[in-house]
Amino acid sequence: MELNKDNIHEWLQGYREEGTKLLQRLVQADSTQGNEAEAQAVVIETLKELGMTIDRWDPDEEEVRKHPYFASSRENFKGSPNVVGVQQGTGEGRSIIFNGHIDVVPAGDRTQWEHDPYSGKVIDGRMYGRGVTDMKGGNVSMLLALKVLKNLGIRLKGDVIFQSVIEEESGGTGTLAAVMKGYKAEAALIPEPTNMKIFPKQQGSMWFRIYVKGRSAHGGTRYQGVSAIEKSMMVIDHIRQLEKQRNDQINDPLYQNIPIPIPINVGKIEGGDWPSSVADLVKIEGRMGISPEETIENAKAEMENWLKQLKDKDPWFEEHPTTLEWFGARWLPGAMDQEHPFMNTLVAGYRNVLGADPVIEASPWGTDGGLLTEAGKTPSLVFGPGVTEMAHYPNEYIEMDKVFEAAEIMALTLMEWCGTEE
Amino acid sequence: MELNKDNIHEWLQGYREEGTKLLQRLVQADSTQGNEAEAQAVVIETLKELGMTIDRWDPDEEEVRKHPYFASSRENFKGSPNVVGVQQGTGEGRSIIFNGHIDVVPAGDRTQWEHDPYSGKVIDGRMYGRGVTDMKGGNVSMLLALKVLKNLGIRLKGDVIFQSVIEEESGGTGTLAAVMKGYKAEAALIPEPTNMKIFPKQQGSMWFRIYVKGRSAHGGTRYQGVSAIEKSMMVIDHIRQLEKQRNDQINDPLYQNIPIPIPINVGKIEGGDWPSSVADLVKIEGRMGISPEETIENAKAEMENWLKQLKDKDPWFEEHPTTLEWFGARWLPGAMDQEHPFMNTLVAGYRNVLGADPVIEASPWGTDGGLLTEAGKTPSLVFGPGVTEMAHYPNEYIEMDKVFEAAEIMALTLMEWCGTEE
Repeated sequence: MELNKDNIHEWLQGYREEGTKLLQRLVQADSTQGNEAEAQAVVIETLKELGMTIDRWDPDEEEVRKHPYFASSRENFKGSPNVVGVQQGTGEGRSIIFNGHIDVVPAGDRTQWEHDPYSGKVIDGRMYGRGVTDMKGGNVSMLLALKVLKNLGIRLKGDVIFQSVIEEESGGTGTLAAVMKGYKAEAALIPEPTNMKIFPKQQGSMWFRIYVKGRSAHGGTRYQGVSAIEKSMMVIDHIRQLEKQRNDQINDPLYQNIPIPIPINVGKIEGGDWPSSVADLVKIEGRMGISPEETIENAKAEMENWLKQLKDKDPWFEEHPTTLEWFGARWLPGAMDQEHPFMNTLVAGYRNVLGADPVIEASPWGTDGGLLTEAGKTPSLVFGPGVTEMAHYPNEYIEMDKVFEAAEIMALTLMEWCGTEE
Repeated sequence: MELNKDNIHEWLQGYREEGTKLLQRLVQADSTQGNEAEAQAVVIETLKELGMTIDRWDPDEEEVRKHPYFASSRENFKGSPNVVGVQQGTGEGRSIIFNGHIDVVPAGDRTQWEHDPYSGKVIDGRMYGRGVTDMKGGNVSMLLALKVLKNLGIRLKGDVIFQSVIEEESGGTGTLAAVMKGYKAEAALIPEPTNMKIFPKQQGSMWFRIYVKGRSAHGGTRYQGVSAIEKSMMVIDHIRQLEKQRNDQINDPLYQNIPIPIPINVGKIEGGDWPSSVADLVKIEGRMGISPEETIENAKAEMENWLKQLKDKDPWFEEHPTTLEWFGARWLPGAMDQEHPFMNTLVAGYRNVLGADPVIEASPWGTDGGLLTEAGKTPSLVFGPGVTEMAHYPNEYIEMDKVFEAAEIMALTLMEWCGTEE
């Protein structure tokens, strides 16, 4: 193992330029929702070089819609391919799924980006771009891990299933479609941006939409109307209090260093249809975190009941209650037993490469791990090289050193978990 | 005059059914911005029956753009005809412009309407529908006034110019285009919904757009971002305080019964692009009232300086100041001397028909009166049958009795102002 470790390190160091170029190509291929095909083509090319069997398909909306865990606001997934590469093991080893999503969130306000968000520019060892941390960098670590083993002639006993999925950022249809095709393994690794921490628990989350009503009037006599914009501020403030109450109850030590373990984020607002009119309807959309200890149903009920209490703060809501919808994306919470053998394998790989104990925490966001665990019966861990705080952020970046360190850890984890031929 | 007054009343009473049908047809023709042609066709038909010379044209965007008072966010006005009908006087009389806009604001949230907003349903003497009060009802009063005089064989000495203009709700390009064509008179009447009050002063107003910045982050670690939605609430609250300060300074007795003489209305909000991301940009749009005593430049400067003070409330705004734009619509403030002879004529007509003194106030909103007065050199009064508080409101309605009372007052005003042939 020590020999392998050094060889792996050395080989990957020699491959820095090409590995960096691979990540750059993936970042340059803008893969926001609906535009995933170009980036997937780069993945396929790489998987083919690895000698893997390729499965590429646009998830069939009628098929995925049948699954109870389906959650998406898309009408169909045409032109958004899922890609799975399979490397058959030599036999008798434990199988593994490497799961990474190819979709990225929108770049947002371009003026806040120092460089083109799809440039993949490298400055002082950091590569910049939308999706570089969340989570193309992690995907590249996985590809590099497979690459180094192949190049060193190390053959794994267990099967490796590499999944490059769509739709993780909006409900996990890509992973669900892969599960429904029957892909399954004894463990899964998801290299979301954890700052090299290991997350055995994944927070769930789901999207909500709230309609807040007002009463229209001419802006010049606005005192005769009721502004849905002003009422929506009250609603947002009310939600903030629910968030506090829910988080005050969290005492899992895995969350102890996280300022708000299960945040409720109001991410979008839209209302009113004329500058000179009092707005009579505002729509707010957001994301509610679900603790690994609670059910989706419980979290939904809490929000529903909480919004009903608005009327105690303002009689307006008695006659004009808000309307709540759960829509689009949802990420199931998930958890792996901390005594699970895959946990030990990954921790050992980490120690071996970095010479220290990893930080073990609960994830601040939902991942496809919930789906893999619950729907796919594949226990999942989340661990990756990306910078947690740069996910969904302008000037998103990743430390290239971490991408290669993670690749080393993953290569050792693969060897230990799947077993190797003499 | 007494004989005429009774004849006019009697004739209009006999014309109730047809007059009501005319208003209904106008309301049923949805004339929101860009869709004015159908309603204008009804106006043209009526003006032709009156024997008027018709001028119908789509304002030429290149032409109107040259005028310093031009304010519109439309790229062009194709398919949005302006209509002017001219009835030449027999000579030596004073001329008058009847000016009414054909455009209506959007109906907004349909669930707040009891009936289809384009039904024109009449229940208990009230007609319901978008635009019935603002201001198709007033337009019909003017048409009825012309109709009754024609049918009673009363010939006016002065010219009557009937203007059915587009774009009043978004900056007055229709009236500006009519002014630029040379239409002009010794006085103008604009039957906006004043509740039968007379407004010699018109509040001006203009549209603003403010961009509020945040910093994006993943919603699951929202504490690492800065929500532009939360910051925009602070901005809206700050604007509310500016409104208070500006209104505390108003002491014109014409405003004494108006709760907020020159309101600042935040009518639209839009921000964030992903439920699971912290919003990094929010756009708010609204309408700032301008007192007849101040200039547009002064009001703009007050808003600009006020927004700069946000940084004293929250250091975030020091590094990330809001961006302010003045866009789209603008209504010039305007005022007619209360000793102007047209004021006396209208007041006399009112007393003659209703046997009481009219309420004289300042308008709570901008009208095309500012443009007619400032750009068109035509002193203007605003007086009409519509219900002020129902303008831009769901279930907008008008009292049909008022439509006919206003028609009587306008008929007498025409006779007195323009003079009649023996």
